[in-house]
Parts: sequence; C-alpha cells; structure tokens
Amino acid sequence: MKKNVLIIGAGGVGQVAAHKCAAHNRLLGDIHIASRTIGKCHAIIDSIREKGSLQDPQGVLQAHQLDAMDTAATRALIERTGAQIVINLGHAFVNMSVLEACIETGAAYIDTAIHEDADKICETPPWYANHEWKRKPRCAERGVTAILGCGFDPGVVNAYAALAVNEYFDQVDSIDIIDINAGSHGRYFATNFNPEINFREFTGQVWSWQGGQWQSNKMFEVQRTDDLPVVGQQTSYLTGHDELHSLSQNLNVPNIRFWMGFGEHYINVFNVLRNIGLLSEKPVTLDNGQSVVPLQLVKAVLPDPASLAPGYVGKTCIGNLLKGVKNGQPREVFIYNVADHVEAFAEVGSQGISYTAGVPAAAAAMLIAQGVWDVRAMANVEELPYQPFINLMNRIGLPTHIREAGREDALVQFAEQASLA
Amino acid sequence: MKKNVLIIGAGGVGQVAAHKCAAHNRLLGDIHIASRTIGKCHAIIDSIREKGSLQDPQGVLQAHQLDAMDTAATRALIERTGAQIVINLGHAFVNMSVLEACIETGAAYIDTAIHEDADKICETPPWYANHEWKRKPRCAERGVTAILGCGFDPGVVNAYAALAVNEYFDQVDSIDIIDINAGSHGRYFATNFNPEINFREFTGQVWSWQGGQWQSNKMFEVQRTDDLPVVGQQTSYLTGHDELHSLSQNLNVPNIRFWMGFGEHYINVFNVLRNIGLLSEKPVTLDNGQSVVPLQLVKAVLPDPASLAPGYVGKTCIGNLLKGVKNGQPREVFIYNVADHVEAFAEVGSQGISYTAGVPAAAAAMLIAQGVWDVRAMANVEELPYQPFINLMNRIGLPTHIREAGREDALVQFAEQASLA
Repeated sequence: MKKNVLIIGAGGVGQVAAHKCAAHNRLLGDIHIASRTIGKCHAIIDSIREKGSLQDPQGVLQAHQLDAMDTAATRALIERTGAQIVINLGHAFVNMSVLEACIETGAAYIDTAIHEDADKICETPPWYANHEWKRKPRCAERGVTAILGCGFDPGVVNAYAALAVNEYFDQVDSIDIIDINAGSHGRYFATNFNPEINFREFTGQVWSWQGGQWQSNKMFEVQRTDDLPVVGQQTSYLTGHDELHSLSQNLNVPNIRFWMGFGEHYINVFNVLRNIGLLSEKPVTLDNGQSVVPLQLVKAVLPDPASLAPGYVGKTCIGNLLKGVKNGQPREVFIYNVADHVEAFAEVGSQGISYTAGVPAAAAAMLIAQGVWDVRAMANVEELPYQPFINLMNRIGLPTHIREAGREDALVQFAEQASLA
Repeated sequence: MKKNVLIIGAGGVGQVAAHKCAAHNRLLGDIHIASRTIGKCHAIIDSIREKGSLQDPQGVLQAHQLDAMDTAATRALIERTGAQIVINLGHAFVNMSVLEACIETGAAYIDTAIHEDADKICETPPWYANHEWKRKPRCAERGVTAILGCGFDPGVVNAYAALAVNEYFDQVDSIDIIDINAGSHGRYFATNFNPEINFREFTGQVWSWQGGQWQSNKMFEVQRTDDLPVVGQQTSYLTGHDELHSLSQNLNVPNIRFWMGFGEHYINVFNVLRNIGLLSEKPVTLDNGQSVVPLQLVKAVLPDPASLAPGYVGKTCIGNLLKGVKNGQPREVFIYNVADHVEAFAEVGSQGISYTAGVPAAAAAMLIAQGVWDVRAMANVEELPYQPFINLMNRIGLPTHIREAGREDALVQFAEQASLA
C-alpha cells in the first residue's frame, strides 16, 4: 500500500499517465511530474486543469525540473515529494539511474521500455539480463517493487500472454504479438514516439524466439499479412521488441515473435535514412570539427511526436495471436485492444500510441497503491496477477477483446464477468 | 602572358586540373596546389608523379596549406609562390575572398562555379550580379583577368552557345543545356561533387530564362526525355544553374534552360532528405544543445566524391540543344561532349564528372598563359574567343561533337579544320 506518484518524463506518454493518475488521485495521493524541461510539465498540468481531470480538485499537482540521469537528484526529488510510486516515462537511457534512486529510497518503480545505453544498440538477448535483472537481488533484499515494461507492448501484451497460457490452452505453441497503427497523422514523416528510441529499435538485428532459441533476422526481411478486427487487412514485419526478452524466459512457449505494421512510405524513408548512415548512434565529424550523432540530428528535424495528436485520425490494433492445444484440440485465439486516436486526444490531449502506453503505466501505479501489485520485488508483467490489471484497464480506457478462430460469433469484450475463474 | 599556377582546392576537380597543368608546365611554369587539408595536395602530387604527368620533370610542383576564406593568407601565398594565374576550385563559398586576393596582387583568376554565401541559397537572378559582377569595375581598373565559370557547365556550354549563335544560326530561339551522367559508381547513394554544394543547387526554386524573362518552377516539376548520342534515351529535369545567369544577359536568346538527368533512386533519396528537413542550410538545435547545419551532416555521412573514381563506369553526355533559324530555314543543332569515367580515372585518377570540370579550367589557364584569354577584365566564357578554347580542349581530352537534326549522317567531331572560319 503506497501513495504519492512521481511521473518522470513529460512527453505524450507522460501526459496520458498524468491525466489518468489525476483522475484517480483519491487513491494515488499527490501527483508530481518531472522533466528536463519544466515547461512541458506545466503544459501537462494546464491540460489536466482545463479538462477538469483531477478527481479531488484540492489534490496536489506539481511540476519539477529534473535530470533523471542524475541518481542523487532523482533520489532527492523522491524524498522531497514523498513519492512512494515512481512512473519512469523518460527516454530509455534513464532507467538505471531512476531505478537506483527507487532502490535507495524504497519507492516502487514502474517503466515501459528496456534500458539502453546511448552508445549501444541491440545488445545480446535477453536484453533484460544486461541491465534490469542484475538489480533483482537488490530489489528483493530491500523489498522494492519494480515493475518492468508496463506500457502496452511490452506490458499489456505480457498480461495477455499469461492469461492465454493459463486459461485458454493446455499447451501454447506460438505467440505472435502484432502491433498495427492504422492511424494517420497527415505529416510527410513522423514517428509516434521519440524518434531516437524508435529508430534504434530497427537498426540492429531482429531477435525473435523460435524453436526455443534466439533467431536473428534483418529488419523488413520477414513479413506477414493478417485480417484483423476493425483495422482489416494489415502487413507487419518481424521486429525485435522488449517483451520477447522476458516472455521467452518466463513462459514455456517455444515460439514468441513480435510484428510491427509499417506502410511502404515509412519503410522507404527508413531505408534511405539508414542506408545513408543517418540513423547511426555513432558520432561523425563535420568539416567544421563538430562531432555529431546523426540519429540525434534526425530526431531534431522530425516532428515532436506530441505535436501529432491534434490532427491524428484512425485506430490502433495491438494484440496477441496464440496457437496451441486445448483439450486435445488445436486452438487459435487473438486477444487484443483497439484504440482510437481522436478519442484519446479528446480525453487526455494525446494521440492513441501514447494513450496505449500511458494507461497501463497508470494502472500499474493504481494496483501498487491498492497493494495488489506491491510485490516488493522486481517483476515483468507476465509474472504478476493479470486479472485485476486487465479488469482495471477495461474500466479506464483500454478494453480487451478476444476473437477465436472458428468462432467468429464469439468476438466479445473481455469483461470482468468473463470466464476468468 | 602570365605564368606560374596556383590551384586552390584539392578535391576531384583540383586533381584533374593539377594533372592537366602539370602536363603543360613548360607553358605554365611552376604548379602549386593549396587546400585546407595539405595531405590532399600531397596525394595529388603523388598521383602526378606516379603517372609521370609532368611535362618538364624538373618543374616546380608544391603543396600548401591554405584557408581560402582568408584573403590576406591567400594574397600572401600568391605572392610567395609568384603565381600569376590562380585556378579557384575550392567550394563556392571562397570565390569572393580568392578573387579579392587576385585583384590585390594582379594575378589572373579562374573559377568554375558561382559564389555562394553559406547561409543563403538561390539568391535573386541573375546570380552573378549579387557577387562577382560587382567586382567588374575593379578588375577593369586594375587590368585583372577574371574568368568566371570555366568548368564544363558553366564553361564549355557557354562557349558552345557563343559558337552556335555566331556561326550556326541567324537567330536562336532556344538553348537547352542538357547534362546527363549515365555512369554508375556502385554505391547506395553519392553525389558526384561536394554534396553540400550539389544539394544546394536543388533545394531552392528553379530559375530559367523563358520568353526573355526569369521563370520560377519547383525542382522535378518539369521534365523532358531525349534520345542522345552514345547514352541513348535519357530523362532530365528543369534545374537552376549558373550559366543561365550570364547567358541570359550576354546573348540575345529568349529561351535558355538547363536540364539535369536524375534517376528515380536519386530523386527518391533527395525528396526524403529534403522533405524531412535534412538538406537545410539553417542550423537546428539538438537535445544536447549543439547547433548543427543538417546539410553539413549529410555531407559528412555521404561518400567523398573523390572516393567514387576507382569503381566508376559509364559515360557522361553534356551539350547544348539549339533551335532557331538559318538562311530562313528552321535549324536544330546539338553540340556536345561525351566523357568516359574509366578513361578519366586511368588518365588522371578522377571520375568523369570531375574530369569534365577540371580540363576546361586548365585550358583557361593555358589560354591566359598564351595571352589569348588574358583579357585584363572580368568575363564569362561566352564573352571570350571560343575557337581557341574548343580547339584546345579537342587536343587535351574533351572533344566536341555536333549532331544536326535532319542530317544524322553529319555527326562529326568538331575539329580545328571544321567550319569555324
């Protein structure tokens, strides 16, 4: 049972989490938002007040300037605010410094993506073992709750995997996580979250878990086309992604793959930038002697993902396609969510991609505050009780649906009364 | 009658000019090569010695370090070397400082491209009036020979225009300068000369001279397809280019246009880079506070044009298509050169694009040394005697050919004995 939340990071996802936490501040207590750029925190607070999102209008809602690479500064802010729950939504380079500050103060830690060192891409799998899991013993010793990868993917899809393995199958042969954004932002080119982190996902090798071992492919080498609910026929590509690196270790499933949808235009722009060397994380020297990381310049010229929200239309569909056996019969189930960019903007001022990542992080904070997920150890989402998590998200904006092959009539919302006993 | 040559700039074009000057050093005297990076000058000198290009092996051939933006340093080098002829093949930003040093010392000046200020692209036409032509009175007062734009285009094509206007037509209605590189360097993407200067040609508006006035179009908005000698069917695009800005003022021709050939792949890469903002000459600020000019980073990641030479295959075809009237009859003539990348590399260690730009600059130096072009004033190439220039290039590597519509049998090399009387 913990309270008072410190959200680190004031991008699109931070905005969503802040709105959702504000809407539950009787449970969560004080809400603090910190960023390198304090103006972005003030803008989020203004948005929360404009939309009247604060459940208890008298509740504390404060902005803070913070360099989250600085563990001592982060620790000091945790202590000053009395935050017992830290939601880390900064870029992926700050995970270890923020986690350390949580371990030292005893605050619960939540993040939505794997830690990265700025000068390395695509480390050896499983990625969690390179950084996060090395801190498992210290979290256990000190009774610190640290929930890793609790956005949508990783996060919700990990819970879907645990649900299916436990309740829908006797044996699961494959989990294919499919992430489709069928929305349109109307710009020539933009990424839906931090371009630097976004591109870093695709410039290394593509790791997948196949036949019980790691397999390496090239980006855009393997594709599939599915007829998905609401968004229809969609092509996606085998992509390396965080959740494979815990699901492969925590579930006894021989094939776990991640597929991300890309349009031809995105692939063309990506290939041009990559082939020319503009997505490199290694600095190059200019004629004037400046040492510049190309990827950081590309980030600087692309639209701020948060700026896409007002004009964004269309829907996302993200879910797990599972194949296996139940009662001796082959079974195929697709567990998924559909989110709408326009609805997300109307509710919290962010686009749908930010919405799907920010709501689960806020849900994790609420489950920790209630004690349900306050496990006093480091855990990935598939290791935690999935039922209260999925039920809570059904209520706060990310309802789960299930489609079963051969039972197209059975397309249902996964509600609390569904067969989860 | 002048002697001793200082070549400023040690890129691919500088290498060609240095080889050609070395091969005529009994006429030209001492040969000096200067660059910001003296190692590039040494490499050119090594190449000249390896190939035994020095006509008089005892002649002076020296490398110098020089920042050509520094007029005083340039003036000092001219004085120290006793150079009476300066061939400026540095980037387009140094023209005014090098010209000033020539005016102050009395040395003859030759360049191959219009001056640009680094923070401006595509100034008001005619471009020469913004910088070079403002120095015309001082050149005349001091008797300084300054030959502007004496590469292939601008340069040779200006001589072709003067030749045709004077000898092939009573009245010329249109000059279409067509520049096709049908060669292949085998890289994913590269520019054939300095990428920064190259891209700056295409990111502004496209100026052309039509109906006796300036017309503005967008890049890749207007295209044509021609069946050209040797290189065959080729598509080219209306492009802004230096020579239009003097030919329009010096010749009484109502339509003068420049067309550059681009493949679909080049256009795709260019459009991606431009649309994202990576070809901008205006600095952007990175997250770490660095101020970076995107175009300078793009230059840094692309291959050095000089590095393309060893594997370059195929040919270039650059020429003037002229339409008009002669003796009351419509006439159409194409005056052109075809250069070969492999032959250029074998002869001087550079690719064909550098070759077509460097040979005319060396030819100009030789004509000044002979007194033929030592006009003691500032001039564009079409204002100078074209016959000795074309004749000289016939002998030193860039032969001129003429194809006349309706007389396909009359495809001839334009030799000294041709009808030039």
